[in-house]
Order: sequence, then structure tokens, then C-alpha cells
Amino acid sequence: MSDYIDLNCDLGEGLGAWSMGDDAAMLEIVTSVNVACGFHAGDPDIMAERAAQTLEKGIALGAHPSFRDLHGFGRRRIHGIPAQALKNLIIYQVGALQGIARSVGQSVSHVRAHGALGNMTDEDAEMAATLAQAVAAIDSDLTLMTMAGCAADEAAQAAELKVARQAFADRAYNDDGTLVSRSLPGAVLHDAQAATERVLRLAEEGMLETINGKRLRLDANVICVHGDTPAAVAMAASIREALEKRGIGVKPYTEHGPKP
Amino acid sequence: MSDYIDLNCDLGEGLGAWSMGDDAAMLEIVTSVNVACGFHAGDPDIMAERAAQTLEKGIALGAHPSFRDLHGFGRRRIHGIPAQALKNLIIYQVGALQGIARSVGQSVSHVRAHGALGNMTDEDAEMAATLAQAVAAIDSDLTLMTMAGCAADEAAQAAELKVARQAFADRAYNDDGTLVSRSLPGAVLHDAQAATERVLRLAEEGMLETINGKRLRLDANVICVHGDTPAAVAMAASIREALEKRGIGVKPYTEHGPKP
Amino acid sequence: MSDYIDLNCDLGEGLGAWSMGDDAAMLEIVTSVNVACGFHAGDPDIMAERAAQTLEKGIALGAHPSFRDLHGFGRRRIHGIPAQALKNLIIYQVGALQGIARSVGQSVSHVRAHGALGNMTDEDAEMAATLAQAVAAIDSDLTLMTMAGCAADEAAQAAELKVARQAFADRAYNDDGTLVSRSLPGAVLHDAQAATERVLRLAEEGMLETINGKRLRLDANVICVHGDTPAAVAMAASIREALEKRGIGVKPYTEHGPKP
Amino acid sequence: MSDYIDLNCDLGEGLGAWSMGDDAAMLEIVTSVNVACGFHAGDPDIMAERAAQTLEKGIALGAHPSFRDLHGFGRRRIHGIPAQALKNLIIYQVGALQGIARSVGQSVSHVRAHGALGNMTDEDAEMAATLAQAVAAIDSDLTLMTMAGCAADEAAQAAELKVARQAFADRAYNDDGTLVSRSLPGAVLHDAQAATERVLRLAEEGMLETINGKRLRLDANVICVHGDTPAAVAMAASIREALEKRGIGVKPYTEHGPKP
Repeated sequence: MSDYIDLNCDLGEGLGAWSMGDDAAMLEIVTSVNVACGFHAGDPDIMAERAAQTLEKGIALGAHPSFRDLHGFGRRRIHGIPAQALKNLIIYQVGALQGIARSVGQSVSHVRAHGALGNMTDEDAEMAATLAQAVAAIDSDLTLMTMAGCAADEAAQAAELKVARQAFADRAYNDDGTLVSRSLPGAVLHDAQAATERVLRLAEEGMLETINGKRLRLDANVICVHGDTPAAVAMAASIREALEKRGIGVKPYTEHGPKP
Repeated sequence: MSDYIDLNCDLGEGLGAWSMGDDAAMLEIVTSVNVACGFHAGDPDIMAERAAQTLEKGIALGAHPSFRDLHGFGRRRIHGIPAQALKNLIIYQVGALQGIARSVGQSVSHVRAHGALGNMTDEDAEMAATLAQAVAAIDSDLTLMTMAGCAADEAAQAAELKVARQAFADRAYNDDGTLVSRSLPGAVLHDAQAATERVLRLAEEGMLETINGKRLRLDANVICVHGDTPAAVAMAASIREALEKRGIGVKPYTEHGPKP
Repeated sequence: MSDYIDLNCDLGEGLGAWSMGDDAAMLEIVTSVNVACGFHAGDPDIMAERAAQTLEKGIALGAHPSFRDLHGFGRRRIHGIPAQALKNLIIYQVGALQGIARSVGQSVSHVRAHGALGNMTDEDAEMAATLAQAVAAIDSDLTLMTMAGCAADEAAQAAELKVARQAFADRAYNDDGTLVSRSLPGAVLHDAQAATERVLRLAEEGMLETINGKRLRLDANVICVHGDTPAAVAMAASIREALEKRGIGVKPYTEHGPKP
Repeated sequence: MSDYIDLNCDLGEGLGAWSMGDDAAMLEIVTSVNVACGFHAGDPDIMAERAAQTLEKGIALGAHPSFRDLHGFGRRRIHGIPAQALKNLIIYQVGALQGIARSVGQSVSHVRAHGALGNMTDEDAEMAATLAQAVAAIDSDLTLMTMAGCAADEAAQAAELKVARQAFADRAYNDDGTLVSRSLPGAVLHDAQAATERVLRLAEEGMLETINGKRLRLDANVICVHGDTPAAVAMAASIREALEKRGIGVKPYTEHGPKP
């Protein structure tokens, strides 16, 4: 389906003295990253270091805003935030990363909502619209990265934003294109070979097989991988290697375009 | 001394359900403000509202970064932050306000360090240099607002930043141009009339009288006033009225220039 | 209905440099208080001062634990906290206030969940059970203060805790004994006289009139009042005065008992 | 010198999704621990789990209060906190852990100040007195754990508190009994064998050699070890094994007493 694939992961999810995942290894594998902005993880130092690293390596830098929830890592759904407040919350975080990026000569290319904020804006049309409006208000040249076909995808198009559409290498899909809940068996693929084959099929045919065995068409040119465990890093490396062997260009979504 | 005077105050120092001072009243009096960026006070909603109000009223918007210290309101001196980390801490906050400002069509004109961070960067050459470098790194068009003649003033010049120099309407000065410590008697002027006369003399003669009765030359075109109590608001209003009666132009430092 | 009435309010809801409401005035009116424990408001200094004041005035001291949410004042519903984590969250806060109280010679008498945590534990049987178990685990002599007849009331009885049952002086009730949502007209009574009459009827007849005009029986000996505005303080004072004029004893729930 | 040695380490220094060190390994080696109370690290869940584990293993549980500084891990010196506020800050944290401990059937035996708060209370007589008074105010049966001979040691005695005196297995000492600053070469011992020999000498002779080769008498029955790296865990295990081989009883300071 795609001529090119962007390999994407979350990054910079340490805080102060705490680290998470193997950012150094992932920076050798991925072509775009979503950097935590201090509300679920991340701090100004980590943000500055990651911004500089992405500049050096030609990786597209994204902001990964979240609910304000360090203790829950942004994974808890928080209800009752008015739309305007949600918009400001997102803009604050994106602006902070933009400032940090600017200070090292880098710039922010996209925004991907994190955790519960990501789930809620993927699902809920009103929250998705708020997210899209936040991004458009801060900089209409920013790309909104979302799950292909979700509410945020539609909201981004309505807001005339560029959209980068993700698919997950290691997550099972329902027939309707949503992710199988992590609480259900089979929701997460742990086998690197299986995940790699799945990504290849998606890249080559624009299809993946759902948990029920149906063929799902997915318009995604961003493959989301993880780096929080050694096995996750190995899976990501395996996917990159396989894509390149098949001659599929792995590069930032910002550089995709029709093959000559 | 000055053809024009900028009246400046700290603003947006509430947090969530808490408010502080009478921001609405001060927005009718001052011509530039330093808006809290969330580390000692302030939140994305307050920041967005203040940014929009300053745009509407033609007030110069400044960022008021601080140590990370909500419980101490940024007034506690924190030691042991490496220069690079201090720089990132400042950039994060300025960037956040820039993002918020951009989203409402406003832009940030200056940076004024808050509380203990302000005191330490006013005094310490190394920290002052870090502050100036932070501001220059995020946007070399930003003005650094400092106390006239302090370490930050010198550091801003060394970094080739524009400088806006403050004097305090309600604080007593030592002979060397530093402020009399708040712990000493007479450090704070509570009489609106006395503060007003002091400001007039500074505006007209570039001089003020120190706590020891000596004449101190002060190159300041920004007068810092407060709005945290009804008496402080009244003092600020009195100062503005007196300046205008004497024909001294009260407008944002960004619009100062030689009189035709 | 009751021989005695306890007048109760939330207290200590400032934070650092920020204050909220007129705690000093309320300490002259109420007989029990729920003191914020630092998660939605409150800090160790405010907690210590309030603990000492309640000791001096013979007021029953309660802990007012909340979700961790300073920016939302604990009013936002947070989903996805496992029961054990919710239990620990509550115990941490109650323990902190117990330590503070002990240091000034006072002790904590009850626990009343705040804001969204209060609403969710009033409504949801599972969360109510977690709250009751948390209180029982830290000290089975603590009283759980809840809305009369809610899920937390039942859970407290199941956990063999003492229960103190609140009614709200200034909130309209639905026919089923729940509060009319603040988003609906008439939800909050602003008239001190009307609120006072309502409290008198409740104290004397154990009844109040619902928003639909029906008579609702309510087994409550704690009347919750507010002190966040001057009008709220005046309403609270009016209620206390009226109760005393009718000969209804106003004293802490801890001292209630059958009249001789 | 001592008939018994207590092996002590800091524990529970993760936060939410972040972990630090190998707590499980250290729980097999040490006989007392200092558990973070949420201000520099730690959260209610980690605290509850560690409290339960210490109960199960017969390890003495200590509170490890800190300045409020998650982003700096409590290692930054914060100036300007009034003595009463510092006292309340400590009490809040100790109380929180006491509540958590009580809920799992465990109790807190001692308090050891963390990081910058530890250094400042070890050095400064006034802050040491505040620490001791805080501990005495919350529970005069608590032991204050300090560096042998420091200001906090003296303050604890003045406050009639029990004292447990630490020596560091892996830190070089100055001739006056203070630790060599981490910024100087040789400040930290990385060799397990050297650290073990040092501990043996201290246990058997009450002496250790300073960085200048002088003999320093040290009245310490608590040896502080670390568990933040695999090498640190191995060093701790080596020390325990060596002590036991020499017939020196390794058990909690709470159980020390003259040998029969």
C-alpha cells in the first residue's frame, strides 16, 4: 500500500532520576518519535536531549501531550475537563516542547495524544475536535498523528490538519479497526516474527488480519513500535530489518511522497 | 529621564480553583505584565485568558518563569540545579506560554524571572548568564526584563538581548542599587503618595533616594507595581494617574522610543 | 428527629500562598470539619494550624481525602484506579493528617471523602467498600462521614464502622435522596432564610422537601454548610443561631447521645 | 565494637510506572530500610507493599522524608523553609507512612531524612533540632537514624530520642567524620572487597580509615548499603556474608542489645 513506512515510538518517558525503556536503542531504529511533555512523564532535560538527538538523526519529532497525571503515567481517564481547558492543557505541553526544540535547533513536526487522552480523543468526537483545534491553534503546519480511521483522524481532517495514520505492530485489531482491549487474551502480540509478518502485509497490501481472521483494510503509513523492554526493542529492530529487505523505504512520514 | 514609562506587574498567579490578587483591576492600569507559567503559580487556563486580555488591551506580555515550587510560590532558593537544567527549566516555561499566546493570536515580548529565581539571577553572574542564554536560545527577539544594573542586566547585554530595566515603586533601595531586604524595617513602602512621588522623581530625573538618603541614578523605564491587595491596586492607580498628569507617556516598553 | 445537630464544613482548602474561604469565621460556627489532606488542597502547615484550632475549640477533626488533583481541586472523576491503589491513596492522606494532628495533641475523628472521590464513593458500591475498608484498616475507631443513605453509608455499616450522616443545608434533593445536579436550576439554595428553615425542619422532623415537593425522610445528624463566600458564612451563622434558638443542641457528632 | 550490626538501605524509591534499584534483592540482605514517603520518590502503593514486605521479613521499617522535590529526587538543597514548616513537612510524610504501615499490620520504627534534607540536618544544628522535634512530636518512641556524630545525632539526644547511628560502607570519610564530597576523587568505593573489609574493621574495632589514612573512631551499629545497581546489590550481599562468617550478628537495630 505505502511506498514508504515510518517507524514510530513513544520516547522520553523518564522523569528526573527515573528512566523508562531503552531510548538510545530506539533512536537507532525509528524514524519518528512522540516525546513526553512533562505531564505523564518527561522533564525539560529529557525533552531537550531527545530533541537534539532527533535533529542529529533526522527523526521526526512529535509532542506527546497527556492528562496531568505523573502518578498514573497518563493512563487514567479523567472526566470533567471543559473543552477549553483540555485545549489549553494540550497547547501548553506542545508549546513547551516547541520551545525546547527551538532552543536546540529542532522543530516539532507532529502531535500524538498519550495514553488515556489518546484513547479518549481516538474515540470521542468532541474530544477529538478539541485536540484538533488545539493543534491547529498552536501551529496549523503541525501534523496530527492518530490511529487510522478514528475520531481524531476525522477531526484532524475537518480542521484541515495534515494527518499521519498509525497502525500498531504488536496489537490485535477488532473487525471495526479498533484495538482489542488489553484485558482480553491475544490483545498483545509478543512474537517478533508474527508482528513482523503483520507489518509487512500491511506495508505491502494495506491489509491486516483481525482477531477474528477477517481482512481489515488500514490506511496507515506509520507503524507504532515499543521500546520499553528488551523484547520490544528486538521486535522493532526485526520489523525495520524486514521492511528494508523487502525494499520498503523506512523514513519519517514527513519525507513520504509518491515514489518517482 | 525617560520620555515614556512602562507600568509592569506580575499577573496570572492563581492556580486552578485559587486566585491571587485583582488581575482585572491591574489590566486597566499596567502596560506590561509578567505571567506565571505554571511552576510557581498559573495554569494553562489562566495563561490563555491573560494572553487574550493583554492582546485586547495592547499590554506587553511577558513570561514569568520560576523554580518548580508550587508549595513555596517560587520564593525558596533551590541550589544544585546544573546550568543546563536551569536553562531547560526556563525554556520549557517560556515555550509553554509562547504556545498558549500563539493560540490566542498574541505573542510573548519578554521574560522576567520570578521570585527566588529572579533574585538569584539578579545576583549571581553564572545564573544570570544561564537565564540570558535560555532566553536567547528560545528566541533572540525576546526582551529580558531585569532590575537595572544587576547581574542579569549585564548578562542580557553580553547575550545581545534587548533589556527592559525595572525599578520598584514600593521597595526601598540600598546605596548600591540593590533592594533592601524585606526582613528589614522600611523595606516596603506602604504609602501610595510616597511611592508615587518616588516614581515621578525617577521618571523625571532618573534618580531615586536610597534608604540612607543618598541619590541613586537608575536607568529604568519600567516601574514595577503590585496588585495583590486592594491597597496595592490603589497605589498602582495613583502612580499611573500622577505620571499622566505630568505628561509622562505611560505605555508598553515595546513602544518606547525617542520623542519626536 | 435529632436531639443534637453537628454543623460541619470543609476546611483548610488553601495551598501555600493561596487561601480559600474564611476558615477563621467558620471555626466560630461549626462543630466538625473536614480538613484537606494535600491532594486536592491543603498543605502540612495549613493542616497543622487547623488541627490545633479544632483542638482549642472542641471541634471534631476529620480528614478530607481526595483524588490527587490539585489543578482540578479534586472535582474531576478519575477512572481506572485499582481498588487497592484507591485504598492506599486514602490511607496515605488520612495517615498524614493523623500524624500532623498527633504532633499538636489532637486526633482525627472521622473521614469524609472529597469532591469527585466523595461523589463516586457515595454512588458506587465497590468504591464505597474500598473507602470503608481503607478507613477500617487505618483505624477502626474512625467514623466515616457520608451522605445519609448512600453507598458509602451502607459500606461503612458493612465494615462495622461508626457512621455520621450528612445533609446539605444549601442543596436541593431529588425524591430518591440524591442531590440535584449542580448543572440544573434550583440545585443550590442561595437564600439563607430558606436554607435555615429547611435545616430546622430536618432537625425537628427528620424530613426535608425535595425539589418536586415531596417529603423525604432523612436520617442525618450532621448538617453540611459552606464557608467559601461571605454569603455562605452568613448562611452558616444564621443556621446555627436558629438551631440554638429552638433549643436544638449544636455540638460535634462525637458528643451526640440520647438526651437525659 | 558492636556485638550486632544492622544492614540498612533506602527502599521504595520508584514512583508510579517508574522503578529504581532492586528492592526485592535488597529485602533479602538488609535488616532495616528507609522507605520513601512520596516527596522525593515513593507512592502509596509502593509504600504499602514495602511495609508489608518488611513485616513479613522482620525488617525494621523507617520513614525517609524529604524536601518536596520529585524532579530533583530530593537532592537539591532548598533554603528558606521556616522551621515550623519544615517540621510539618517531615511529620506529614512520617504520618503518611505510619498510616500505610498500620493498614498492613506493620509499624514505623525510625526516621532517616533523605538526600539534601538529610545532609542539611546532619550539618546544621537548627535544622537538626527541627528534625528531632518533628520526630518527637509525632511519636517519641521513634528512633532517629543519623550519621554517627553529626548535628542530628546531637539533636536527637537533646530531644531524648533513641538514636541509630549509620556508617556508610561505600563512602570515604574525612578526618572529622564527615563524608568526602561526591565531587572529589575517591569519594565512593566501588570495590566490594574493599568496602567489605572496611565494614568488618568498623564492626570489630569501631574504627575506619579516613581518606587521609588516619584512624577514625565511629560509634555506628548501622551500616548503610545501596541497591540501586547490580554492583551495589552484590556489594551489600558480600558485606552481609562476611559479617556472618566472622560471627557478627546481622539483625535490625531494634533487636540489638548486649550479648549474653
